[in-house]
Amino acid sequence: MIRAYSSTIIAVPVDQVWERVRDFNGLPNWHPAATDSRIEEGRANGEVGCVRNFALADGSGRIRETLLSLSHTDRTLSYDMLPNGPLPFVNYVARMKFSPITDRDETFAEWWAEFEAGDGQTDHWHKFVENDVFHGGFRALEVSFSERK
Amino acid sequence: MIRAYSSTIIAVPVDQVWERVRDFNGLPNWHPAATDSRIEEGRANGEVGCVRNFALADGSGRIRETLLSLSHTDRTLSYDMLPNGPLPFVNYVARMKFSPITDRDETFAEWWAEFEAGDGQTDHWHKFVENDVFHGGFRALEVSFSERK
Amino acid sequence: MIRAYSSTIIAVPVDQVWERVRDFNGLPNWHPAATDSRIEEGRANGEVGCVRNFALADGSGRIRETLLSLSHTDRTLSYDMLPNGPLPFVNYVARMKFSPITDRDETFAEWWAEFEAGDGQTDHWHKFVENDVFHGGFRALEVSFSERK
Amino acid sequence: MIRAYSSTIIAVPVDQVWERVRDFNGLPNWHPAATDSRIEEGRANGEVGCVRNFALADGSGRIRETLLSLSHTDRTLSYDMLPNGPLPFVNYVARMKFSPITDRDETFAEWWAEFEAGDGQTDHWHKFVENDVFHGGFRALEVSFSERK
Repeated sequence: MIRAYSSTIIAVPVDQVWERVRDFNGLPNWHPAATDSRIEEGRANGEVGCVRNFALADGSGRIRETLLSLSHTDRTLSYDMLPNGPLPFVNYVARMKFSPITDRDETFAEWWAEFEAGDGQTDHWHKFVENDVFHGGFRALEVSFSERK
Repeated sequence: MIRAYSSTIIAVPVDQVWERVRDFNGLPNWHPAATDSRIEEGRANGEVGCVRNFALADGSGRIRETLLSLSHTDRTLSYDMLPNGPLPFVNYVARMKFSPITDRDETFAEWWAEFEAGDGQTDHWHKFVENDVFHGGFRALEVSFSERK
Repeated sequence: MIRAYSSTIIAVPVDQVWERVRDFNGLPNWHPAATDSRIEEGRANGEVGCVRNFALADGSGRIRETLLSLSHTDRTLSYDMLPNGPLPFVNYVARMKFSPITDRDETFAEWWAEFEAGDGQTDHWHKFVENDVFHGGFRALEVSFSERK
Repeated sequence: MIRAYSSTIIAVPVDQVWERVRDFNGLPNWHPAATDSRIEEGRANGEVGCVRNFALADGSGRIRETLLSLSHTDRTLSYDMLPNGPLPFVNYVARMKFSPITDRDETFAEWWAEFEAGDGQTDHWHKFVENDVFHGGFRALEVSFSERK
């Protein structure tokens, strides 16, 4: 099993970061790998159990993810990835958490995933998730605040 | 500050218990103190941040509670109670958790709250929450499954 | 990866159960599979980081386990199993938690493990840990209180 | 009840920070407010349940604190402060947690406490704990690594 983890500092107050990230259907608003997201079956965005369905920006296919938990109190959310998508991930469950850095009004951001690589390319996918999906996502998240100011 | 806690065994499989309890707007379906519940402002039931607004069955007024977190993975949810209702509670935050008892296919149920009593009747309200709201609620929850079989 | 989980009711108050179980070197006092335990290297029993070294009662060898965490507040402890013992377990990490059942003064007991089976006998070892190690251990733990009354 | 919380970045790898901080009897090695610490009653340093007894550097008296939990896995520890010391704190329980910042090999440090102020000076003691005890402690912890290089 692969355990991926990335953490970083985002130079934006935690309430602003959390408001953007907790918008489960709004992944394309900040993550460059995602585009054209919708919530399936007329459920509400942010309802635990809803499925977001978005396209990968490289055109390789669509990903479907179920919101498993969301906590305003802890600023954390978790989701799984449904099978049969463009990535060879099995039993993929991920979690994000955002904490205030009180002496500088910035955010400590963490992103975890546990999964298996269906094609056996364990090292490749471990690095891909930590670097491209997580770290790249965090940097784009930070930039998304500058662009809109 | 009052810290209330009650736990018990419910003789029903955990998945059934959780499906009933996670219906945030469905409190009147099992708790005898609640009736006539609605989700405010057209938000979806189960969307973290939604407010349920229900009447106390004794006619003393309406209670409004915000869903703060909900996790399918851990079968836990938390909520706060908004001020200016019929109960003199301040900074009331509660959490429920349901765990499987694997050797008997039943449920271990836990309910916590932290709050202050605005009228200073600390012991009274501590016992009221643990006994009437929590323990009484759990027993009625269990009975609600027999009635519908 | 194998995820084992067993939970049960132990008809003994939680403080008594926790006092017995938190004695990391005292596993042979209640678990029938363990005998002749000692803490290695002169470290204190109950010091996080200490290693208990005990024999399996069936004579198949000795097991070494490191105490990873211990919390009085949550009545939980975790440990790993060091490699090269008699069981073919890889990356074995286990956790126990004990909660009060407030309306009957008994204990809800939980035991988790995550590990891989080095010999590939995944189903066999999954059941072995849940049934023999965990469930059998819990039943013997309960009995250990009757014997000493 | 007072809920104090401070968090910051410490420009030292998390394993080094944790090794220093988890030494429960070693508080004077890095916190400028503490001196002359010993573990009471011949228990081992780091054994959950042990009491550290240290003097405040300003000469105002000695503080006694019980180690309540310690986890290597999560790099977290908690403790309470026993009554009748020089500070007017009631039901004081504190927790520390240290997380890796993976893209810069530094540490995200968090420190929480819940307590009541026996003298009613709530705001004063809230700020004192967050600023002097926690934030001041973190800055001195960081400096303690430079001094020894």
